[in-house]
Amino acid sequence: MTLHLDIAAVSILIRENGVEAALTQLAEYIEQDYRRWPEFEVSPRSACHSPLGVLELMPIADHSLYSFKHVNGHPANAAKGLLTVYAFGVLSDVATGTPLLLADMTLLTALRTAATAAVAGRALTRKNSRVMAMIGCGSQAEFQILAFKALLGIAEVRVFDIAPAAMDKLTQNLAASGLTIIAAASVREAVKGADIVTTATAAKTKQAVITPDMLEPGMHINGIGGDCPGKTELHPDVLRAARVVVEYEKQTRHEGDIQQLPADFPVTELWRILTGVEPGRQGEGEITVFDSVGFAIEDFSALRFIRDLAKGHEIGRAIELMPELSDPRDLYRLVKA
Amino acid sequence: MTLHLDIAAVSILIRENGVEAALTQLAEYIEQDYRRWPEFEVSPRSACHSPLGVLELMPIADHSLYSFKHVNGHPANAAKGLLTVYAFGVLSDVATGTPLLLADMTLLTALRTAATAAVAGRALTRKNSRVMAMIGCGSQAEFQILAFKALLGIAEVRVFDIAPAAMDKLTQNLAASGLTIIAAASVREAVKGADIVTTATAAKTKQAVITPDMLEPGMHINGIGGDCPGKTELHPDVLRAARVVVEYEKQTRHEGDIQQLPADFPVTELWRILTGVEPGRQGEGEITVFDSVGFAIEDFSALRFIRDLAKGHEIGRAIELMPELSDPRDLYRLVKA
Repeated sequence: MTLHLDIAAVSILIRENGVEAALTQLAEYIEQDYRRWPEFEVSPRSACHSPLGVLELMPIADHSLYSFKHVNGHPANAAKGLLTVYAFGVLSDVATGTPLLLADMTLLTALRTAATAAVAGRALTRKNSRVMAMIGCGSQAEFQILAFKALLGIAEVRVFDIAPAAMDKLTQNLAASGLTIIAAASVREAVKGADIVTTATAAKTKQAVITPDMLEPGMHINGIGGDCPGKTELHPDVLRAARVVVEYEKQTRHEGDIQQLPADFPVTELWRILTGVEPGRQGEGEITVFDSVGFAIEDFSALRFIRDLAKGHEIGRAIELMPELSDPRDLYRLVKA
Repeated sequence: MTLHLDIAAVSILIRENGVEAALTQLAEYIEQDYRRWPEFEVSPRSACHSPLGVLELMPIADHSLYSFKHVNGHPANAAKGLLTVYAFGVLSDVATGTPLLLADMTLLTALRTAATAAVAGRALTRKNSRVMAMIGCGSQAEFQILAFKALLGIAEVRVFDIAPAAMDKLTQNLAASGLTIIAAASVREAVKGADIVTTATAAKTKQAVITPDMLEPGMHINGIGGDCPGKTELHPDVLRAARVVVEYEKQTRHEGDIQQLPADFPVTELWRILTGVEPGRQGEGEITVFDSVGFAIEDFSALRFIRDLAKGHEIGRAIELMPELSDPRDLYRLVKA
């Protein structure tokens, strides 16, 4: 039987473990897996687009484990009281195809996105970065902030969102975090003097939330929300002024902020930095961008992580995804009158 | 909540409905969907190969429904008491991404493969075909035979398998079917004089189960088992002597018996015959081949069919694949200490 962890079970495991500890642990799984990049069979996600949204499948495998995530994106769902993005994933044994885990990944996707950004940030930010600007205070924002607190030690966050209620939500959620949270009056005010600028905005259009005049020497831009065709956050000249790091070039050319630039615009894949094939930050003045879109390897890591975290807990329930039959060569007996 | 039908629930629904009735009804879903081919977004399946097997995802969508099937193929599983092939699928609403159904498809895949073959057979066999040869008596055989009985009226079946136990199993399973079942001593003996020759053998090699000298004018070859790279059943000259019909050319070139022939070998896609764009059988003497590998549209049809069949029955159970959250923009509240 396969273990099924629904969102309630995943939430309990993360809450009891502590969010910052979970982000730190998950970051180790992600960094380990990215370092093993050549062992993975990688492919861009398959996407099925309709006028109202997209349904995607993200498969990946190494020599022993296989995973896929199913994820949607339907902006109009919010008005119907439905999630605009939800996800679930399956982790299987490569040798037999046995499904080991079916898990809700709505929360896990938020966690792995934040943990991956912090892994990239660890390689790309200046040492002693303490101040982060957080542009966009939706469901991803708290996780980004806590990942950069846990992994990099940021202490002050200037937040901005066009919706004041979203800023209030974030400020209340992180009131006991030990961070100094400052509500800014504009993007420009939030960004000024920040070591790290994180963008995680929702509008599905070609935006320029960050413009070149906001850049300061040594800044690291952590671009999360420019993650599908037609959705960007960074002005093209911000990208041109920076060293740009991506998860998987083939996918990011299509989905990331670099969709605005020619196909030969130079980028570096994250795994090459994490393995030491390419350098991380090169000097105090360098401007760096992590153009994140989310890649299957992070979901693979997240499923490994939550499966390990569930071990020893009496949590989740058994679901039969791979039937056990007395004679696999005799399916007909199942329906014989 | 999403309806989950496990293999026990699917089996009950098919058994209570009657296998032949189910095959007939499912064939109508499949034929309807193939006739709407231009409305579908089609792509070859994504496959993750390892030395021991393969894990595949088969997504497809029309304007209102989306489905994907997850299916494996691990020949060595048999020795471990595990299924060599199992499958499950999800049917979702395109407009919102809401998953409507999670269903075991181990049995449904066998049913849809047989129903599709009979749909193709209805267009390609001679009228008044009564005698079928069944080469290979594994888990697919009974369903093939009953589909051709229910949809085309075959009355006599000559069966052959290299394993006598498999022939015994089939003969016992279909003892009450009203069919004349004859155990043949060889492939040649089974095929001689047959109107329809169905091959569904298991060996994962390039076989030539059917050779050109066995062909007779007007014969229809229903090739089921040559369905992945390196696995064939029909001698290349059997294909050259016939008009070859496929499900989806782009996928079958890679996976079907035609993998043995040049890329410009002419084939006809089934939907073009079902919509009348191309003719079906052309004359009494024509030899025809349905080079079946299985396509996502058939799984889409099977999920629609079993969902409709389950309506009005108190069967299956609810599973949460798409969480309901009080505030979708506040995922953090799920894990707040």
